[in-house]
Amino acid sequence: MAQNVRPAGRRPPPEPWEIPGNAVPHRRRRLTPPGPFRLESGEVLAELEIACETWGEPDRDGQNTVLICPALSADAHAAGRGGGPESAVDGFGAASASGKEGLGWWDPMIGSGKAFDTDRFHVVCMSLLGGCGGTTGPLSVNPDTGQPYGPDFPVITVGDIVRASRSGLHELGVRRLRGISGGSLGGMQALEWAARFPDEVDAVVAVASTAGLSAQGIGWNWIARSAISGDPAWRGGRYLEEGARPVQGLAIARMVGHLTYLSAAGMAKKFGRRLQDRQEFSGDLQAADFQVESYLVHQAAKFNRRFDANAYLFLSHALTRFDLAKRHGDGDLEAAVERFRCRTLLLSFSSDWLYPSSDSRRLAAALEARRKRVVHYKIETTYGHDSFLLEAGRMTPIVRRFLTAEEERHTP
Amino acid sequence: MAQNVRPAGRRPPPEPWEIPGNAVPHRRRRLTPPGPFRLESGEVLAELEIACETWGEPDRDGQNTVLICPALSADAHAAGRGGGPESAVDGFGAASASGKEGLGWWDPMIGSGKAFDTDRFHVVCMSLLGGCGGTTGPLSVNPDTGQPYGPDFPVITVGDIVRASRSGLHELGVRRLRGISGGSLGGMQALEWAARFPDEVDAVVAVASTAGLSAQGIGWNWIARSAISGDPAWRGGRYLEEGARPVQGLAIARMVGHLTYLSAAGMAKKFGRRLQDRQEFSGDLQAADFQVESYLVHQAAKFNRRFDANAYLFLSHALTRFDLAKRHGDGDLEAAVERFRCRTLLLSFSSDWLYPSSDSRRLAAALEARRKRVVHYKIETTYGHDSFLLEAGRMTPIVRRFLTAEEERHTP
Repeated sequence: MAQNVRPAGRRPPPEPWEIPGNAVPHRRRRLTPPGPFRLESGEVLAELEIACETWGEPDRDGQNTVLICPALSADAHAAGRGGGPESAVDGFGAASASGKEGLGWWDPMIGSGKAFDTDRFHVVCMSLLGGCGGTTGPLSVNPDTGQPYGPDFPVITVGDIVRASRSGLHELGVRRLRGISGGSLGGMQALEWAARFPDEVDAVVAVASTAGLSAQGIGWNWIARSAISGDPAWRGGRYLEEGARPVQGLAIARMVGHLTYLSAAGMAKKFGRRLQDRQEFSGDLQAADFQVESYLVHQAAKFNRRFDANAYLFLSHALTRFDLAKRHGDGDLEAAVERFRCRTLLLSFSSDWLYPSSDSRRLAAALEARRKRVVHYKIETTYGHDSFLLEAGRMTPIVRRFLTAEEERHTP
Repeated sequence: MAQNVRPAGRRPPPEPWEIPGNAVPHRRRRLTPPGPFRLESGEVLAELEIACETWGEPDRDGQNTVLICPALSADAHAAGRGGGPESAVDGFGAASASGKEGLGWWDPMIGSGKAFDTDRFHVVCMSLLGGCGGTTGPLSVNPDTGQPYGPDFPVITVGDIVRASRSGLHELGVRRLRGISGGSLGGMQALEWAARFPDEVDAVVAVASTAGLSAQGIGWNWIARSAISGDPAWRGGRYLEEGARPVQGLAIARMVGHLTYLSAAGMAKKFGRRLQDRQEFSGDLQAADFQVESYLVHQAAKFNRRFDANAYLFLSHALTRFDLAKRHGDGDLEAAVERFRCRTLLLSFSSDWLYPSSDSRRLAAALEARRKRVVHYKIETTYGHDSFLLEAGRMTPIVRRFLTAEEERHTP
């Protein structure tokens, strides 16, 4: 396809981290910003290591970077091939949220001619602080003890995640973002950046996100975390020493999450009441007779192979406590967004009941009330919250138009 | 209040099971239909015992009985005082779904002048086969072994539950129902009765119910059951012998259920993002800082004190497999309801996403297509699925009018 054909002369010389066979320049890096890194809680991480992937090339004056922020279960591997089933949960780029092994979680959005166009932009994605995608988190070795942090990892916030990413960008020589984007928790990071570092970002694209999760969303996350920490195999978070992970608890957490990412209409279409490989019920109390049951079991097992239970706890904890109004506006959303100096694009999905369109509408109204440049698109779809991963085709023209307008403003 | 004043002469003489101080005649009975009781699976229960409560008086020719069918977590104690916190989980009338200790789960609906008017009707409610409300279930002693059935209790269906209730009615001398009603799983029983024993019921009132749970509902029930059976304390269902119940698994199951019974709008109003007894986050990874988290923990602990984990498994299993079309119409809903000879009232609630109004609408359309008498009311409310317990005030005039019309038809 035309978008993958690039003039050979524009390709940089290969370097060790470059992924062979990928037409778009795609690199993996380990960034080590100078420590220590102080968290909002006052706790200090002696060392900070960040797993990072980049696509496309920085321009001469370093003004074309777009930062892509992962959601809870995703990582730096947002596009291209890499990772794959051989990666361990503590591996680098292991936690691809895509169903296609090895392909980045936002691959349809990042590349030549795509929404985040690597012909124009230097696209960067970093694994989350507190996660298990290669950036410092509960699986990392605590330099004070020589052992993995596990449950002793400090409690983090979305603000900490954003500040860690910013340190990583400084290592790349990037001091200002052309744009920042992400879905779900990724969108929260984009909004947090806009409020915290308003002079360092031109455009925010927050997809299927919110300025503060609903009571219902808080409840689902609580249940997921309770399932993990209530699993006896969690052992106060010290399961790494024991060699037995809280597989059951993490499976329940993932199944709860998974159902909240789908819509009733989408599930009715995909599964209905159809049985899995049988015509009649098995009569077994514990059998996964229904297709939807079998699917949940399969997805949970897959998740268990690639994700760390403590990372889930720390990230879910941070996600539920993210509150733009509380943190930056003393509880008032309008006051919080008063700080924004960027243009903002909000994308929401009609069947997303976890991060409902009404949340984006409320945020857009607050931005408008403070005369900020904001546009909100609600996309009709039955994919629920997962739409931010699945509706690339419909998001692409909107995002491209939004970012191009931004670029035109920058063109001398 | 006028509705509690009854001519003294109409009151029957007290009997041992009558609840003192209740103006409406209210009795508890243990019914023991002659065994054995054969289940749809072909398995046989040597003995069947049914916990039953009744309100009002049967008329001379035994034609005024209305059967109330409990939902998953409810029992025979549908109205009046009784039960209460001292009841054990295997107690009689222990599992009141009402927040008010001791008061029946549908108390606002059953009584003199209420929706199910005990001045006119002999109202009967029986605990569920396979449950833990006093009717034969996994806590009952298996006569073959002298030990509680536990996980060896046979798998049951909604059809089995209905047939057990019918045996109980026969013990009361009731051969025909003026009406049958219930919410959720209770409504499924009413629909099953109408298809299975069409000549034995005049009117069905199915509230917040469905002819077959959605894929999403199947998914939530699967997660709840997985949390129980995945709890190591479940021990293959033999926890009674071990003296340690699967408290963690049942808590997760209840929290999942609880969230599906509420609506996002209702939760936003009731809890929002408010914190419980604090102004700032605790900074503790496991703390229930939010009100909604604290509420879920409290409700789960309460449920654990009154409900049996195996009973939850058997009833949730039966509930998800209920499928009126599959069982009575070879997969075709219209063919299934062709058997109905009753009038049908369907009540649904706008914010009930677990048993959505669209399910009732589809059922009503099938009934209409077969020229059955059906009326469907969708009530606007934010209480979600719980509306069937909370919206008595709005249901009452509709149910009264529907049942009165039925009664007029019967008046000579």
